[in-house]
Amino acid sequence: MPSQVSSKQILFTRGVPAVEALPNKLLSECMQAVLEGPDAKGILQYGHNGGYLPLRQLISEQYHVSPDQVLVGNGSLHLQDILAGFLVKPGDVVFVEQPSYDRAIKTFRRRGAKVIGIPLDLDGINLTALEESIAEKKPVFLYVIPDFQNPAGVTTSAKKRQALVDLAERYDFWLVEDVPYRTLRYAGESLPLLRDLNSERVVTVSSYSKLISPAIRVGYLVGPLALVKQLTKLAEETILAPVLPTQAAVVEFHRRGFFETNLNNLKQLYAPRLQAVVQAVKTYLPEVPFAEPEGGFFVSITLPQSYHTADLLARAKQAGLLLTDGRDFFADPYAPTVDATQGERFVRLPFCALTPEQLEAGVQRLANLVCK
Amino acid sequence: MPSQVSSKQILFTRGVPAVEALPNKLLSECMQAVLEGPDAKGILQYGHNGGYLPLRQLISEQYHVSPDQVLVGNGSLHLQDILAGFLVKPGDVVFVEQPSYDRAIKTFRRRGAKVIGIPLDLDGINLTALEESIAEKKPVFLYVIPDFQNPAGVTTSAKKRQALVDLAERYDFWLVEDVPYRTLRYAGESLPLLRDLNSERVVTVSSYSKLISPAIRVGYLVGPLALVKQLTKLAEETILAPVLPTQAAVVEFHRRGFFETNLNNLKQLYAPRLQAVVQAVKTYLPEVPFAEPEGGFFVSITLPQSYHTADLLARAKQAGLLLTDGRDFFADPYAPTVDATQGERFVRLPFCALTPEQLEAGVQRLANLVCK
Repeated sequence: MPSQVSSKQILFTRGVPAVEALPNKLLSECMQAVLEGPDAKGILQYGHNGGYLPLRQLISEQYHVSPDQVLVGNGSLHLQDILAGFLVKPGDVVFVEQPSYDRAIKTFRRRGAKVIGIPLDLDGINLTALEESIAEKKPVFLYVIPDFQNPAGVTTSAKKRQALVDLAERYDFWLVEDVPYRTLRYAGESLPLLRDLNSERVVTVSSYSKLISPAIRVGYLVGPLALVKQLTKLAEETILAPVLPTQAAVVEFHRRGFFETNLNNLKQLYAPRLQAVVQAVKTYLPEVPFAEPEGGFFVSITLPQSYHTADLLARAKQAGLLLTDGRDFFADPYAPTVDATQGERFVRLPFCALTPEQLEAGVQRLANLVCK
Repeated sequence: MPSQVSSKQILFTRGVPAVEALPNKLLSECMQAVLEGPDAKGILQYGHNGGYLPLRQLISEQYHVSPDQVLVGNGSLHLQDILAGFLVKPGDVVFVEQPSYDRAIKTFRRRGAKVIGIPLDLDGINLTALEESIAEKKPVFLYVIPDFQNPAGVTTSAKKRQALVDLAERYDFWLVEDVPYRTLRYAGESLPLLRDLNSERVVTVSSYSKLISPAIRVGYLVGPLALVKQLTKLAEETILAPVLPTQAAVVEFHRRGFFETNLNNLKQLYAPRLQAVVQAVKTYLPEVPFAEPEGGFFVSITLPQSYHTADLLARAKQAGLLLTDGRDFFADPYAPTVDATQGERFVRLPFCALTPEQLEAGVQRLANLVCK
């Protein structure tokens, strides 16, 4: 019943996990086990550069690589920062999907890259636009979020995944695939990772922020051995050593079978929330096309030009609806291929931390603001 | 009895805490308390940019500043990296004591600074050399470790502390004081921090690596409000959010009174080790002058030119003695003020993770290698 929540503020601002789903008791049990277990002294001392070795082993088994191809860092943004710091040289260009994760765009820019946004269609990046941009200037890497993209909710199709690795091979650039939401699939089947199609051209970045807890800050990167070796050296030079107790707790979380049960809990909690937001968009904004995701954290919509979107953020706030500025997700909002108002008309709807009732009320409130 | 350990390898390579002193049981108790306490969900969610607020409050009380003047990061090197990333512009010069902490030198260089080493006397940096270097080119900051310096063990005298802040004020540069060892004083009285003499010119960096555990990676920075605000923004852009469970455990460690008892345990363990290494140097290398520290982790010696130091690292290794290359601590080994062999003749003796017997045997072994 939307009426129950209509007077309260609804936050569509951040892609955070539902607070009730954070497994504090399970983590407490794991922390106790590792801090009183046989390796307790080891996980409090300097060491394990590149990340706690048992965690790197666990990840390496999941990705069928050697543990030396895994670097564990303080969340995936930390690893993207290190990666950009290593790969980007002055004058380099980096491509991102447009829209894309705002913090990644900022990070690549701060590391000196010119960041070019390539339009994202409902089935993945627009290949014609990508080839045109490559012809103009080859990127050092293309950053993609192939599963349940942040912010658009788009999943790159199998055909486009193959096309991306083919292009990366032909034109000699890196693909950086960021897959933090991939495991949170509420329906359908997973498509291959880009690294499954070409492990030599692809760096895979992911984290446990959405699967266990954001504040443990455990993210990881998987890539070719020579690259990971260099990145590990750079990580050592910037943060010296990994945070080991949290990384050891993640290993224990798997050993005790908590990872699977927790993942199932998350899916049971989030799946109806996804359904609720999708249903609300279909009900209250029936003319708005959008990618209907099968997992992840985000549904996003681009409001038609005929809708009343001027000054939307401020009007929404007054109506008790907090939105993120859609323009933040656009690296390149004034490129010739992009309608300059597209960013303003882009609305991200993170659904995991809101109840179905809040989601319905929020979308209804949005519709009231934009439908003339 | 040195004979007990004479056949085993002795590691004088890294300034790490004694593994037996790592308080794993106490930390386990703290972790359990915070992960099952009233803020358990909060410390697993995104938030607390700049560091866990109760920890910033605790530190701010110790330093008599506002919590907004404290930034908590993943160890102090992480904060030095952020600080250098923010302050250093192309062409900038950074001064360090010579010798100084090798990783800090590397970090400042990687952030684009030209790093100049200013000779360190037994009572702190050589002021004449410092003024000459300032006249040549003013640094963006001078990095000093005023208490029980790494690697030299030197403590900057009260007079020189005052001179440093006077120079920083007169010539308009920052002082970055790194004080991770300050609390580990085994004798004598603490001198004022540089920030006690001029809080507007000084950035203080420290950590719990030597006081609780290195692998929790909790370091902090204290500085003027406007600067800390900018650094907090940069931290957020690179690591997004802090590791909260470890930071919350540090707060709990204080609340339960563990910090004081643990500190006393460390002092009781380390004080006889310092005595042992000092006594061994006086016994086996009686002609070698060195700064006799009243705390910290390091005693260091510069072997006279007449000693047999050629190929020392390899010969030491063969004799079961692992040493760090002294040249790594010299930012500027070929400056006109420095004898080019000084780095080669410089030997750091970290004493905390070795028993008094190992320390005596190690110094004796070293003496056998270098005394002709």
